[in-house]
Amino acid sequence: RNYSEKLKKQFSDKEYVGFATLPNQVHRKSVKKGFDFTLMVAGESGLGKSTLVNSLFLTDLYKDRKLLNAEERITQTVEITKHTVDIEEKGVKLKLTIVDTPGFGDAPVADYIDQQFEQYFRDESGLNRKNIQDNRVHCCLYFISPFGHGLRPLDVEFMKALHEKVNIVPVLAKADTLTPSEIEQYGIKIYQFPDCDSDEDEDFKQQDYELKESIPFAVIGSNTVVEAKGKRVRGRLYPWGIVEVENLAHCDFLKLRNMLVRTHMQDLKDVTREIHYETYRAQYVRMDVSHQAVGLLSLSLSLSLPLLPPPTQLRRMQEMLLRIQDQMHTQKDAY
Amino acid sequence: RNYSEKLKKQFSDKEYVGFATLPNQVHRKSVKKGFDFTLMVAGESGLGKSTLVNSLFLTDLYKDRKLLNAEERITQTVEITKHTVDIEEKGVKLKLTIVDTPGFGDAPVADYIDQQFEQYFRDESGLNRKNIQDNRVHCCLYFISPFGHGLRPLDVEFMKALHEKVNIVPVLAKADTLTPSEIEQYGIKIYQFPDCDSDEDEDFKQQDYELKESIPFAVIGSNTVVEAKGKRVRGRLYPWGIVEVENLAHCDFLKLRNMLVRTHMQDLKDVTREIHYETYRAQYVRMDVSHQAVGLLSLSLSLSLPLLPPPTQLRRMQEMLLRIQDQMHTQKDAY
Repeated sequence: RNYSEKLKKQFSDKEYVGFATLPNQVHRKSVKKGFDFTLMVAGESGLGKSTLVNSLFLTDLYKDRKLLNAEERITQTVEITKHTVDIEEKGVKLKLTIVDTPGFGDAPVADYIDQQFEQYFRDESGLNRKNIQDNRVHCCLYFISPFGHGLRPLDVEFMKALHEKVNIVPVLAKADTLTPSEIEQYGIKIYQFPDCDSDEDEDFKQQDYELKESIPFAVIGSNTVVEAKGKRVRGRLYPWGIVEVENLAHCDFLKLRNMLVRTHMQDLKDVTREIHYETYRAQYVRMDVSHQAVGLLSLSLSLSLPLLPPPTQLRRMQEMLLRIQDQMHTQKDAY
Repeated sequence: RNYSEKLKKQFSDKEYVGFATLPNQVHRKSVKKGFDFTLMVAGESGLGKSTLVNSLFLTDLYKDRKLLNAEERITQTVEITKHTVDIEEKGVKLKLTIVDTPGFGDAPVADYIDQQFEQYFRDESGLNRKNIQDNRVHCCLYFISPFGHGLRPLDVEFMKALHEKVNIVPVLAKADTLTPSEIEQYGIKIYQFPDCDSDEDEDFKQQDYELKESIPFAVIGSNTVVEAKGKRVRGRLYPWGIVEVENLAHCDFLKLRNMLVRTHMQDLKDVTREIHYETYRAQYVRMDVSHQAVGLLSLSLSLSLPLLPPPTQLRRMQEMLLRIQDQMHTQKDAY
């Protein structure tokens, strides 16, 4: 039999058990299941955020967006919006969600991230956890304006309000002069590339080093194909020349994409799950006495059970009970 | 620069984003983290369970075990024991735990499995989830005696008591005449090999089919190398000939090992996590009113917080409060 022949061959090495195939089993399962990734873009309007995202994923995420005229722009209620696309590449499926925060300050964006954590917390505390939809934000590209000559107070405030909640990757909307040390100087914790293992090969170490050196990534995006030196490239045509998006000398676009997609996408997800979400969850659970009410609340909600009175009410009741019993005793004694 | 050159080459295909590397990122991370697997062996003594496990993993898990004389055997308190070994193969690390249940009935074994689930439930409901030790049992090899001419009531009872809690893989201690339909006839749900995807290659489908046909696996184990037809093989020497362990015509040892280690180890873990543990958790959470107390208990334990009174006590207090208030009103009215 075919299979038997194969088995015999596999086992010809008598000292090989076969659990070295475990990573392949994981690999196989992950392909079967497919991937998802939620990317948030933040920063003021007009910095080319949508264009960059489209360039990163070579897809039109905003095809349904209509351009507004000046009057509409003023009356429009601007909201945090989500765009989701299913894309596939070499048999690998990715459900990509882009969360757009047009010109928002830190408070509503922090709220949005917290809400996703809270929803996840409720779901994972609930009864049926089979089909939990995970909307947690895995990465936030924060666009720094090139006109501010460095970080403005607004930028510092925004990143500091969010850096415990989400992996921040600062992006300079166009090449500028902001240095990594400036970011550190303000005490902002941006997404930390994990340390290289000492046993990694030299190529990987070099790549890692150059990535870390490139922060903030100075990028431009373009969905336009232009002609440069006889070749057709993605780029922007300026009166003074062509900026090629995918030219490393022109901008860090390739490095950003490489990091975000090819080398660190899974790590961004792991850090979100293991650090940011756990930080949120611990605060939520610890929250004073009320955590007990919260635990009950989330359980009760998921079970549709009647709620117990919250602890404060309970305490008041206990006190009242004692007081009344006391009063009654006094009355009795008085008789 | 070396890396820049590499990047340029990678991006020469302009329509390739690169998220097809996601399974490789998962693969890489899984190797870095290492694997663990907990295997339980059950069934009466003297069926060669330890020998088989040692043969499966080519390691001596029981090197510290001392053989007891008859007197010691009687006075010895037999317990469920755990043996853990760290083994490595081609750079893949596996922490293998064998849970031994020498001759136990179903009740203590079911209790043991439940205790691991309960511990995990407490840990994952607790505050610090960083270093949770997962002791959940991923698979139970149930050894059927070859002298019983099929399943005995004891076997049926045992497997039925456990089949909702753990992945059962029945093993016939030596080649015998029990057929798969006999297992089905008793309504025992053994570990179900996941269905093949229709897009799998023919080899994989054939392998899958033959695996399913081989249940229960008829195996013998041996750590002795004997000489058979001039070749040195793992096997047992009988007066009437040699049974080669790794000969497919002689027994299903290779098939069992292939299934357990090379093709389905990850699936056994996933089914444990997604089906058996979730079933336990749902029952635990749902458990009448007391689930609320339990939720509080596990939270409070992990937070070392004083407990709220249990719901029944609370209800009694509310009733008492009402009664007392009522009494007081009556008294007031009486004045």
